[in-house]
Amino acid sequence: MPFKDATEQEIDQVMQEAWKAFMQFRKTTLKQRADLMRTIGVEMEAIGDELIHTVMEETHLPEARVKNERARTIFQLTSYAAACEAGHWLEARIDTANPEKGDPDIRKMQVPLGPVVVFGASNFPFAYSTAGGDTASALAAGCPVVVKAHPAHSRTSELVAGAILRAVEKCGMPKGVFAHVHGASFETGKALVTHPHTRAVGFTGSYGGGKALFDWANQRKAPIPVFAEMGSINPIFLLPGKLKQSAKETAALCAGSITLGTGQFCTNPGLIVGIDNEDLQVFIKELGAAIAKTAPGTMLHAGIAKAYGEKRKAALQQQEVETVSVSEMQPQQEQGVPTIASATAKAFFSNPLLHQEVFGPYSLVIRCADAAELLAVATHLEGQLTCTMMATAKDIKEHTELVDLVQDICGRLIHNGVPTGVRVALSMQHGGPFPATTDSRFTSVGADGIKRWVRPLSFQNWEDDLLPDAVKNGNPLGIWRMVNDQLSNGALA
Amino acid sequence: MPFKDATEQEIDQVMQEAWKAFMQFRKTTLKQRADLMRTIGVEMEAIGDELIHTVMEETHLPEARVKNERARTIFQLTSYAAACEAGHWLEARIDTANPEKGDPDIRKMQVPLGPVVVFGASNFPFAYSTAGGDTASALAAGCPVVVKAHPAHSRTSELVAGAILRAVEKCGMPKGVFAHVHGASFETGKALVTHPHTRAVGFTGSYGGGKALFDWANQRKAPIPVFAEMGSINPIFLLPGKLKQSAKETAALCAGSITLGTGQFCTNPGLIVGIDNEDLQVFIKELGAAIAKTAPGTMLHAGIAKAYGEKRKAALQQQEVETVSVSEMQPQQEQGVPTIASATAKAFFSNPLLHQEVFGPYSLVIRCADAAELLAVATHLEGQLTCTMMATAKDIKEHTELVDLVQDICGRLIHNGVPTGVRVALSMQHGGPFPATTDSRFTSVGADGIKRWVRPLSFQNWEDDLLPDAVKNGNPLGIWRMVNDQLSNGALA
Repeated sequence: MPFKDATEQEIDQVMQEAWKAFMQFRKTTLKQRADLMRTIGVEMEAIGDELIHTVMEETHLPEARVKNERARTIFQLTSYAAACEAGHWLEARIDTANPEKGDPDIRKMQVPLGPVVVFGASNFPFAYSTAGGDTASALAAGCPVVVKAHPAHSRTSELVAGAILRAVEKCGMPKGVFAHVHGASFETGKALVTHPHTRAVGFTGSYGGGKALFDWANQRKAPIPVFAEMGSINPIFLLPGKLKQSAKETAALCAGSITLGTGQFCTNPGLIVGIDNEDLQVFIKELGAAIAKTAPGTMLHAGIAKAYGEKRKAALQQQEVETVSVSEMQPQQEQGVPTIASATAKAFFSNPLLHQEVFGPYSLVIRCADAAELLAVATHLEGQLTCTMMATAKDIKEHTELVDLVQDICGRLIHNGVPTGVRVALSMQHGGPFPATTDSRFTSVGADGIKRWVRPLSFQNWEDDLLPDAVKNGNPLGIWRMVNDQLSNGALA
Repeated sequence: MPFKDATEQEIDQVMQEAWKAFMQFRKTTLKQRADLMRTIGVEMEAIGDELIHTVMEETHLPEARVKNERARTIFQLTSYAAACEAGHWLEARIDTANPEKGDPDIRKMQVPLGPVVVFGASNFPFAYSTAGGDTASALAAGCPVVVKAHPAHSRTSELVAGAILRAVEKCGMPKGVFAHVHGASFETGKALVTHPHTRAVGFTGSYGGGKALFDWANQRKAPIPVFAEMGSINPIFLLPGKLKQSAKETAALCAGSITLGTGQFCTNPGLIVGIDNEDLQVFIKELGAAIAKTAPGTMLHAGIAKAYGEKRKAALQQQEVETVSVSEMQPQQEQGVPTIASATAKAFFSNPLLHQEVFGPYSLVIRCADAAELLAVATHLEGQLTCTMMATAKDIKEHTELVDLVQDICGRLIHNGVPTGVRVALSMQHGGPFPATTDSRFTSVGADGIKRWVRPLSFQNWEDDLLPDAVKNGNPLGIWRMVNDQLSNGALA
């Protein structure tokens, strides 16, 4: 490891500085915050090839993917900047006084929670890491950010942190608005989450890691919210009409999604469920053929490759599991082998190991005896980031109970598409019922992600010039507000 | 106790029925839900005097207050009905497909979490109880509700539950949409919170009670949100300019708020903080005189009267605490005696007992040596529902550090008013940082209270006629939606 773990004293100092910075940063204008975010993007880009090459060395990701992810991360920064300035997230509400009823004037808006600690993801060295969505959305909200670098790409993280710190300085922001610490140990994480000045936590990673942070946060004297995205098996349901219509095309679509990025996406489809019949056999055969022809890919780091190898092996060794197809190409060291397995629904019900995520290019096809078993599989599933229905409109209308159940266990419901490819947009829900995340009510992608870092504050009976701009009579920010229960983007009449 | 505690088997049956009802209830239209809420109001009113008299017997509240609270509760039901239909809470968002970029069509809306368990408050037998704000907002969201009756007014709760059940039947809603159970024991609460079909919890009461529910909920296999409002001492800060200008009027205002409803409001001001000088002495003298002339009032029940007596006694017995004034009138049994005490800021810093809520007509005036001590008092305070600044505009501008600190610890910040009297309006934040509530991001009063019971769900690539009405192209609900980042209440162009 090129960097030493931060000590508890260092973490205390960082959090004290973050708190001090919070007192100033929360009063900055929306434009100042947006400028900061855009400047971070500029500074990230300015590092140039050094940044690209460092990521490639640390993560084995191919150049095109790394460049795409950098572009996506800069797009995130600029889109959070735009959302910050548009101010919908402020949820400004005004109810003017009603002296007849004795009702005082009350105005409400969202205010930042305070310093946010971000634990980046190993599989997105830019987009879900140091200057990723958690950092950008927290800065938009007015919260200082302390990032704990992911040990698997700590040099990349250090470079990106440098870009952020230069942007902070260029924009004249208080120094403690951003800090970067290293730490591969349990203790570093715990010290960050339990520090009294930490007010919220963002995390993307494993169930074990996220759940530990969640528990520490809830055991604090004053509990704080933890937004942990902990993965998912993203089930795909194959409905009979759709399979009859296009088993082959559906199989090709699934094969692409399962192996994209060597399967290292949290939205990778790890479970495919259908009713066993000739059409499903065609699907399985086609899927197997596509997987056999897909080359193994080098995984992010040795730890992930090892975990994939072990979990894949454990799954394939289950008596009830049959191996459908394995990539025909010989894997190099630390490569993940594309693999499709299959089992009956009955095996799925009785063996909890088959419900587990195998992080990598692996998917398990569950063969159900009938529609009742298909439904039963849905009732056995835990919370997911996504669920997908491969279905004709007629299928959907004939399986309302299944569609209802599936809506209850996911954050995003896809129709005749694949879960990989997470659009950065306001309507995106990247989150889902536990254990996919610790809080299904929030998203970690899209402008609604800002809402994770704020809480409402009401001002009762304040004179106009003492109020924050967001709720002043004249609406100097020009934002949309609810005024006496009506939306308005003008000044108070 | 006139009713037996529900057994674990009974609770299981109730939750199973609630779950079954959820599958239907979540598909009801906004209008159907609004009709249900309005019908509950009608049925409550139809009980007539029997209901009023039962509350008076169980809680000792005077008739006028009981009638007012009934009117407020019916207003809450109808205002949640209106908010439900207006549909802002659905937060509908549409991002249409962008084939050039390969972006799919995504649409997001809020969906109900599932069955909600509500624990009512002892001090609001209507407004925060069986058909109170938690129940009304959860029904608006599309969540079935299971109420555990407060043992201190279980007959009232039974009557109100009857009204709700009649409304459910009249409106043709699924039977399990509402259920009512009794239980004075620890076990009943735990069984309700830990049942797998329970998806969220609303609570108003003590810190001990709320924290226990919160911990049980977080220790579940799948944790669920708990919205517990656990009380507050609602500090009032007296700034020097304001005191110089109007010490007497301010004292009169405070006295009224401290003794309103025999001090049995969660927003009762239990702490008043000022810089010791002649003006503060005038304030204390006037406050004391007003309190001396205020009659003791009968408290809600024997337990509350006993707790008030004990906590008041413990506070007054502290060596550093001086008793300023006590009601001159002799109290009857179970009456709370209006009381003002005082102590220095130094005593406040060193004695944590002085930070505790004394639920009843009691307030403690903290005398600070200077502005620095005033600030230090603010830094010593835990999270509060409300804070109040008695201040001129000049005071506010000269004490920005104090105002900033105070904003960080409360949910509602009042200027030259009193915290009692919680307006039911969209802009109301009734909530605050821990330990005032378990989740400062949500309110238990006003239409934003609906947001406690929902989570976002995205629909990706769905045909228009398979989508829920809220996100259909034609906007059949006529609600405001974010369409490609712009607010619109029309159909898609």
